[in-house]
Amino acid sequence: MALIVQKFGGSSVADAGGIKRVAGIIARAYEAGNRIVVVLSAQGDTTDKLLEKAAEINPNPSKRELDMLLSTGEQVSVALCTMALDAMGVPAVSLTGWQICLRTNSHYSNARIKSLSTERILAELDKKRVVLVAGFQGINKFDDITTLGRGGSDTTAVAIAAELKADICRIYTDVDGIYTADPRIVPTAIKLKEITYDEMLELSSLGARVLHNRSVELAKRYHVNLEILSSFNREPGTKIREVVRVEEVKISGIAKDSNIARIALIGLKDIPGVAFRVFRTLARKNISVDIIIQSIGREDTKDISFTVAKSDMENARELLLAEKEAIGFERIDISDSVCKVSIVGAGMINSSGIASKMFEALYDANININMISTSEIKVSVLIDERDADNAMRAIHTKFFGV
Amino acid sequence: MALIVQKFGGSSVADAGGIKRVAGIIARAYEAGNRIVVVLSAQGDTTDKLLEKAAEINPNPSKRELDMLLSTGEQVSVALCTMALDAMGVPAVSLTGWQICLRTNSHYSNARIKSLSTERILAELDKKRVVLVAGFQGINKFDDITTLGRGGSDTTAVAIAAELKADICRIYTDVDGIYTADPRIVPTAIKLKEITYDEMLELSSLGARVLHNRSVELAKRYHVNLEILSSFNREPGTKIREVVRVEEVKISGIAKDSNIARIALIGLKDIPGVAFRVFRTLARKNISVDIIIQSIGREDTKDISFTVAKSDMENARELLLAEKEAIGFERIDISDSVCKVSIVGAGMINSSGIASKMFEALYDANININMISTSEIKVSVLIDERDADNAMRAIHTKFFGV
Repeated sequence: MALIVQKFGGSSVADAGGIKRVAGIIARAYEAGNRIVVVLSAQGDTTDKLLEKAAEINPNPSKRELDMLLSTGEQVSVALCTMALDAMGVPAVSLTGWQICLRTNSHYSNARIKSLSTERILAELDKKRVVLVAGFQGINKFDDITTLGRGGSDTTAVAIAAELKADICRIYTDVDGIYTADPRIVPTAIKLKEITYDEMLELSSLGARVLHNRSVELAKRYHVNLEILSSFNREPGTKIREVVRVEEVKISGIAKDSNIARIALIGLKDIPGVAFRVFRTLARKNISVDIIIQSIGREDTKDISFTVAKSDMENARELLLAEKEAIGFERIDISDSVCKVSIVGAGMINSSGIASKMFEALYDANININMISTSEIKVSVLIDERDADNAMRAIHTKFFGV
Repeated sequence: MALIVQKFGGSSVADAGGIKRVAGIIARAYEAGNRIVVVLSAQGDTTDKLLEKAAEINPNPSKRELDMLLSTGEQVSVALCTMALDAMGVPAVSLTGWQICLRTNSHYSNARIKSLSTERILAELDKKRVVLVAGFQGINKFDDITTLGRGGSDTTAVAIAAELKADICRIYTDVDGIYTADPRIVPTAIKLKEITYDEMLELSSLGARVLHNRSVELAKRYHVNLEILSSFNREPGTKIREVVRVEEVKISGIAKDSNIARIALIGLKDIPGVAFRVFRTLARKNISVDIIIQSIGREDTKDISFTVAKSDMENARELLLAEKEAIGFERIDISDSVCKVSIVGAGMINSSGIASKMFEALYDANININMISTSEIKVSVLIDERDADNAMRAIHTKFFGV
């Protein structure tokens, strides 16, 4: 008898048909003899509709009141799904965030979980009931309702799985797993049977937006076994765990991120403290920097190139130009027609051939590389945005043969 | 500086325009220097829409889950209205039933209030904020959400006013007060400036469905001054309080109740215990009986007539026929084409002329009386349903001259 946490997203419970289908999945797992805790998101476009209502009344509503408003969506979902299970003869009970004492900090609309109580959940499981918990919501120290921001229901599910020491936390989505590349770009992409937390984290932050990083980080920290699978078919999904691969090193996936811009500072003085002054200027305004490359320039100067989110590009340029004297550079070049393509695979660092294989694939496809960045488990290249999809296909074929 | 509780119903907050109008009423009272607590119902047809969603999924949903579902409606209302006040520059905060620890018993869908905490409300009032509380909802001893049934938000408002010892509890509705008769039937009906709790209770139970009796009873018990007024205009409404009228006895209003059926048991034995056996039979199946008349029949027999709700008529007949031998009666007559017309006024018992004045009005209008029942503050007659509206106009003219 396993303890399973299941999480279903808004598109899975969008209407009565969806809720009944989800109830069917829950019922099968329950009837197989498992103890089941379910976390649900708000139905389909409920959140958008509530936001519209708020906008009609106040174009800039307080975040506390928005959380009060939005948290009703998940409450509706769990009540309806419990009714559906009831109609199937499966005993079930719904609980809100405050009913499991899911405490968060006070950052309304983007709160972080601090603790939750398993007492009520365990008492209901002992009564042989399926427990349905409203995702995305908690309460702060004032007993005011908070919401968890993007990927919030995934985080709720992982947090509950961690506290309950669940055997597995299954995240049901509208895709059926993690692929070696986005199937819309690389039609021959292969679904992965399993992947490590770190690989998943890299793939997520590199643009494969199946799971929010917060939930994967939480799962990694508390050793929660995750599985990504579809609520629309019964195919096995992709398991995320701390697997140690004994077979030959291979890459798990290829991702691209187009929401990126490149900034180059040319002709910096080659003296200590220059890089510090550049990045302090950006950090003060909370501009995150991704890849950083420092290269030797001409005649006692150096160049520093780095990438930022597209939305930060103009802001970063203005900040740097305002500090031009203090930092000391000749000119600034910016470009937002770039794209980052990355390959991810655990243990890559022990296999130097991986990076060169990627570069070979790009050379064969006649694609120029602007910047290169490597970590223990990934290799990223910055290339022209027009080349991105070709690059992904070329790399996929090189590594997976298809 | 007064402490005022205001309650707005679902039709007053049905859309963004309604919410802004309600916020305007709240803002005026706040800006006049008062401390304001507001209780809101769910928007317009929200409750019906949620019930439809539930019915699609389970035709017979559990009441616990229904309460979980329906309580979201009031939460949406208070969040939106708080945003509207915020947009007007009026500081405000919304609270759910559980956030003011509104404890009820465990009768899901029809719970009774046991207690509530004013601590959070007073703390927010001290911060010069308007406090908006979700009506209709509470939590039971298991911390599960309950709802209060019909008239629930009125009851929430009165309970909060009682605990806070508010100066007045204003119930805003789509009518602008209590009239001497239903203006749709008696166009000359007059709006009352004030009325006692008992008169209001009689009028409510006699068919004038402006306020649910539960909230009036609660107001009476805790001496809460009530006022019924419209959210659509600024006319003064009707005040409900323990007034002692020093002027001549007059009636407060005329009401009719068509949801009634008459049952007559003919030829009962004239021995002790007969009435007991009749009404025990009905009480066992929770059938409420209203007017009861016992009259002398022919040759050592008696007849008992009484009224029940129309929906209970068939059931009552079957129950009585099943006990025909044990009770001992000749035959049973039933009729559902009857109507109860009542006049209500405090101190009526001291003024025997009132009843005869009513009967005179009916005689003048050539209307036959089936049954008569009197109490301290009312006189009711059972008449043919076809005569009801004529009877109301005749009585109104007799007492009010118009």
